Amino acid sequence: MEKVKIAVLGLGNVGKGVWEIFENNMTEIKNRSGYEIEIGKILVRDTSKNRGLHIPNNILTSDIEEIFADDDIKIIVELMGGINPAKDYIMRAIESKKHVVTANKELVATNGKEIISKARQNGVLFLYEASVAGGIPVIRGIEESLTANKIKEVVGIINGTTNYILTKMAHENLDFATALKEAQEKGYAEADPTADVDAFDAMYKLAILTYLSFKTNVSIDNIYREGITNITSYDIQNAKEFGYTIKLLAIAKEMDGKLELRVHPTMIPSTHPLSNVNDSFNAVFIKGNAVGDLMLYGRGAGSLPTGSAVVADIISILRTNMTVTGSSNVILDMPILPAENSISQYYIRMNVHDQSGVLAQIATIFGANDVSLSSIIQKGKNDNLVSLVFITHKALDGDIKKSIKLLEQLSTVDSIKNVIRVENFDE
Amino acid sequence: MEKVKIAVLGLGNVGKGVWEIFENNMTEIKNRSGYEIEIGKILVRDTSKNRGLHIPNNILTSDIEEIFADDDIKIIVELMGGINPAKDYIMRAIESKKHVVTANKELVATNGKEIISKARQNGVLFLYEASVAGGIPVIRGIEESLTANKIKEVVGIINGTTNYILTKMAHENLDFATALKEAQEKGYAEADPTADVDAFDAMYKLAILTYLSFKTNVSIDNIYREGITNITSYDIQNAKEFGYTIKLLAIAKEMDGKLELRVHPTMIPSTHPLSNVNDSFNAVFIKGNAVGDLMLYGRGAGSLPTGSAVVADIISILRTNMTVTGSSNVILDMPILPAENSISQYYIRMNVHDQSGVLAQIATIFGANDVSLSSIIQKGKNDNLVSLVFITHKALDGDIKKSIKLLEQLSTVDSIKNVIRVENFDE
Repeated sequence: MEKVKIAVLGLGNVGKGVWEIFENNMTEIKNRSGYEIEIGKILVRDTSKNRGLHIPNNILTSDIEEIFADDDIKIIVELMGGINPAKDYIMRAIESKKHVVTANKELVATNGKEIISKARQNGVLFLYEASVAGGIPVIRGIEESLTANKIKEVVGIINGTTNYILTKMAHENLDFATALKEAQEKGYAEADPTADVDAFDAMYKLAILTYLSFKTNVSIDNIYREGITNITSYDIQNAKEFGYTIKLLAIAKEMDGKLELRVHPTMIPSTHPLSNVNDSFNAVFIKGNAVGDLMLYGRGAGSLPTGSAVVADIISILRTNMTVTGSSNVILDMPILPAENSISQYYIRMNVHDQSGVLAQIATIFGANDVSLSSIIQKGKNDNLVSLVFITHKALDGDIKKSIKLLEQLSTVDSIKNVIRVENFDE
Repeated sequence: MEKVKIAVLGLGNVGKGVWEIFENNMTEIKNRSGYEIEIGKILVRDTSKNRGLHIPNNILTSDIEEIFADDDIKIIVELMGGINPAKDYIMRAIESKKHVVTANKELVATNGKEIISKARQNGVLFLYEASVAGGIPVIRGIEESLTANKIKEVVGIINGTTNYILTKMAHENLDFATALKEAQEKGYAEADPTADVDAFDAMYKLAILTYLSFKTNVSIDNIYREGITNITSYDIQNAKEFGYTIKLLAIAKEMDGKLELRVHPTMIPSTHPLSNVNDSFNAVFIKGNAVGDLMLYGRGAGSLPTGSAVVADIISILRTNMTVTGSSNVILDMPILPAENSISQYYIRMNVHDQSGVLAQIATIFGANDVSLSSIIQKGKNDNLVSLVFITHKALDGDIKKSIKLLEQLSTVDSIKNVIRVENFDE
């Protein structure tokens, strides 16, 4: 059996998972790749740190040049995260005709175009299955299995932290802060949770899914992004009464040749398969014009699941015997629909003063701005304020914004408490 | 762009789907395969039949020899179904160094070993993604994406007809016969529904999943098989009271180096993702030692979804430029656990005469046969008979069978109404 040497950059959570998988499943990996794989070098900051793994000390190095200098290393696995120096190392690896595997969503989302083009020029493979939804084979699914389809829509729960928080809020009636704290204690959320709860993480992943599904390179500035920090357990309970569940969705949807790209909390019917994706699980729902509705569900993060995707990419490269066949890469770069032109149903919750004629005033404003109402419920009174909850029919985002602005100026309206998009998956 | 000619054998439901996909998605297929694909010949029984498609008459033929004689045809797509003459045609195609794509589950399940070995000898590809779960990329998922894993368990809802029937029975409280009739009217079930409702279809697909997941060629006689014809809506309602949903599951599970292979109606927790797979949808749940829990969900049948898998296989072949790389194919052929040695929880429903001491008699028999009980409910009385429902702890299938036999001999027991396995996914 032929031997091959690889190098791993970074030995954090995912790096350790990759090491563990090689230890536990060496026979399977050999059989399936056709190669005896040796992890020749691992780049770490501090080679003396005790990591509690049986890694021979002599393969740890803090000097990247050692890795580039080793011509026997054919594949570089980048698991450092962040843009710098990860990008620089990857570009140099490609220039030295080494194949590259990465789990780095931020890098692929923001610099993928340049890296992929460089890999093509140099005749090496650049694979990044682990960068979206951990162990779920969504990238290979789109790239290899849905090739007969025009993809119409990709909708994902692709951030485990926020899904854990929303599940806790829904099932145990916790408020956001308490659920976040619990997520932090369990290691699902970082000390600074911004990247997750403000949906930057999901946004990066959506950019990658958009590239794959619609062959469109998208600047992350063109993705509408809204986090979950404003969601209250009261909204979640209201949603339940209407038959909905609130999830943070990343949506890429083709509408008349234009792409809608948005990440935001969304009310979805409780009967939809995505609504049963709970805790830190991820799922990606794809609509193709041949395959119909498809959903891939699993562990979107964690050492071993993400490692599973990384090692699968390594095996894929070896299975081709490290030769790149000339598959084409037609880029469509579809136009992006501006967020204010997107059409959706909305849940709007406000507190109003308990006076006659309020509802008429509100309805008049909605009507004048082409927003028609699907249901209204009046909830309990509190300090002379009444809570009103509206669900609209489909309306232009711009019209909703205009209505909200006018409603806020009404003296009878105390405050607009929340505005949440509603997705019925009905077209 | 290079041109390639393919031939399709059979123009039924799936054949039409494939034709339609080529018509609608030609540009995508070209871009992704790197080839201009021409369907050169389609084998049909009657070339004069009007099929309502814009297929040029001159490509229809009823003579298979025309297809074998055409050296320009590089890929044969077998969509006839059944063993004969499909197998013969496929073997001849392989001998003439043509690559083969098929959707034929029965053939792959029963003759896959021979065909795959012949394809390897002849250096051609034999792909069959469409043979299991229609458009869901479960075969490529296992073969390409889970390569870093030891697979521990594959559990599928892989027959749309029975899932449709069970969903109708559960949601609309229909009896089996009525739900079956509705399925037949909607075209989900055949006039003779045996293959579906007696679980032959799911059994074939399980044999294929077993080969892929455990590298074990299995004779279908080694798969325990039980259909859904004995399931009543009363059992379904009872299950619901216990927090369970009844699904026809195909299970392949590794236990201490042995394989358990069974297809049967199963009570699963209503919180498990498989329990929300409704109507004619399919799903395959996979547990890997790295990826953890993974589920692939979608359309398991139908013209376009199955066609989506067929065309993806064609594109896969073309992407390799029709060269087969030397990936290894290590066969493990693990031993199969005899059905009576399998361990499971059970739901047992019986009618007993309303006499004192009955429960003690029954409990004694269970106890003497190492079956311990987890819960008991006594349901309403009818004609002096009382309905008793037991859920056992984990027990040997053989011990359950012995207990049932003894219970049937009790004069106080009128009849054993149903015995259904319960799966809590807790190993």
